[in-house]
Amino acid sequence: MADCVKAASLLKSWDKVLVISHASPDGDTLGSAAALLRGLCSLGKQVKFFCADPVPEKFSYLFEGLALGEFQPEHVMTVDVADKTLLGETPKELVDRIELAIDHHGTHVPFAPERWVDSTAAATVELVFALLEELGAEITPAIADCLYTGLTTDTGCFRYQSVTSRTHRIAAALLERGARGADINRAMFESKTKAQVEAERMTMDTMRFSSGGKCAVIQVPLSIFGATGVKETDLEGLASLPREIEGVVLGVTLKEKENGKVKVSLRANPPGDAAQLCSRFGGGGHKGAAGCTLEMTLEQALQTMEKACGEYLGELGLL
Amino acid sequence: MADCVKAASLLKSWDKVLVISHASPDGDTLGSAAALLRGLCSLGKQVKFFCADPVPEKFSYLFEGLALGEFQPEHVMTVDVADKTLLGETPKELVDRIELAIDHHGTHVPFAPERWVDSTAAATVELVFALLEELGAEITPAIADCLYTGLTTDTGCFRYQSVTSRTHRIAAALLERGARGADINRAMFESKTKAQVEAERMTMDTMRFSSGGKCAVIQVPLSIFGATGVKETDLEGLASLPREIEGVVLGVTLKEKENGKVKVSLRANPPGDAAQLCSRFGGGGHKGAAGCTLEMTLEQALQTMEKACGEYLGELGLL
Repeated sequence: MADCVKAASLLKSWDKVLVISHASPDGDTLGSAAALLRGLCSLGKQVKFFCADPVPEKFSYLFEGLALGEFQPEHVMTVDVADKTLLGETPKELVDRIELAIDHHGTHVPFAPERWVDSTAAATVELVFALLEELGAEITPAIADCLYTGLTTDTGCFRYQSVTSRTHRIAAALLERGARGADINRAMFESKTKAQVEAERMTMDTMRFSSGGKCAVIQVPLSIFGATGVKETDLEGLASLPREIEGVVLGVTLKEKENGKVKVSLRANPPGDAAQLCSRFGGGGHKGAAGCTLEMTLEQALQTMEKACGEYLGELGLL
Repeated sequence: MADCVKAASLLKSWDKVLVISHASPDGDTLGSAAALLRGLCSLGKQVKFFCADPVPEKFSYLFEGLALGEFQPEHVMTVDVADKTLLGETPKELVDRIELAIDHHGTHVPFAPERWVDSTAAATVELVFALLEELGAEITPAIADCLYTGLTTDTGCFRYQSVTSRTHRIAAALLERGARGADINRAMFESKTKAQVEAERMTMDTMRFSSGGKCAVIQVPLSIFGATGVKETDLEGLASLPREIEGVVLGVTLKEKENGKVKVSLRANPPGDAAQLCSRFGGGGHKGAAGCTLEMTLEQALQTMEKACGEYLGELGLL
């Protein structure tokens, strides 16, 4: 196990560093990677980035002006990766060479010889912020934007239980160092295309309640993409909607995938634990938000999740 | 003009204090009042509260366990009141006796002999936090909840341009003093009844774009209340929806009122200024969010606002 000082000392001794983000990248894994890469660059290191999936357009600003190199990496590390399986199609020869993992998931399954895992952090960027300070890297406005992005996206804009006074203090420091907080929040949370609005409306129409209103499920059939023109990444915000309804403990979003699979996004209100329920289907995540994948039709996934939620609510003594 | 020290010195010398919130009270005016009343109480003062409108159920926890007195007030003050007209049906004899106004609105129209107006504060509770520290009042968990409520509701959960590093630092301090941040956020932002979800869906169906997609208007007819069972306060979140659509600069929500009036809520993205446009109709507010009232039918209000938005966008050189 490493800590901030150990991670910093490793990085100080390294050059030609490859930083890897998890597949289906979000604001925290990308913000962490981009901030760290920028910091390492400013310290004269050659840096490289890898993610098994493309960086979504809305996160492209994180990497703007960042000088990524073309070289054989000497050292490989991950940020915000809770489990090797979340690296997706990352080449095995890279996965096998991971030396350091920096992560904030309580569900972290060790895969790197050195790892700094702090589940009291609301986002991995909290750790990267401390790391950059330890490294003596200047928090430039661009780095502040990257760190703020991870902070706000992983906390639903400072909304969740995971937020601590440290989270707010870091946000304060980042705003002072030039982070464009409101602009980032608008881009992350308040920007919908007309197609998205239409898709949201269609999805809300599918909402089904079970377990006496404690479970709410919405479905996103593949047909929605043709009908509205939305892209899959446009629908990320949907998953939070079912849980927002009064009395709902478990909010489930079922997304039909092209390969006969269904991606399940689960959101839980206390005392529900989304990660616990998803782990029964080989998935994982946090208490409030987790996910798993089912190999079945959308209709079967609906039955499966309503049944599993009912059983879980029963175990919690809520039915 | 007063400042924090002056306001504190006045309050130190006062007893039997009446604190007044603005009509149609929100989380900032109520959180400011409740926090201040609790603090004054702890310093041995007798305190009283007045608001022309009832405290919405979802804010009732702010006043729980607070010992309000029954007495003729010796001193009268307001919190978060930008203009005398926003006091609604507050009795004239009270309005005439207001000695101190603490407010954060840039549009503040002076009505009190002593006023502490700081428009760099994202919420009036930022000023109350400083005031309580100046008074030497302990920030108890209950006070922390009140202050956090004002902070988060007035900033859309730390989302808006008005948020500064001070806002985040205060949030950090409040969490450390026991504010139940996530619970408050869930109650304020993530709790919808099924009726609300249905009303939202109906409202989204009314969305009309004009000015080449730069203006979006949604309508809330009176009939929606009968059709869905929602209460008016349930629909507050709606106003932010039109502005969230890509390309929209001015997002307008028109709420039909029983007395032949229409309440206009305007939200603006830069370079739009909601307060500037609403002031043309006798209203006011902030750059990002403002309101006014029109005496006409819903259909006429739609025409009026689409026309006014078009003209304003033209003045800004956006058409």
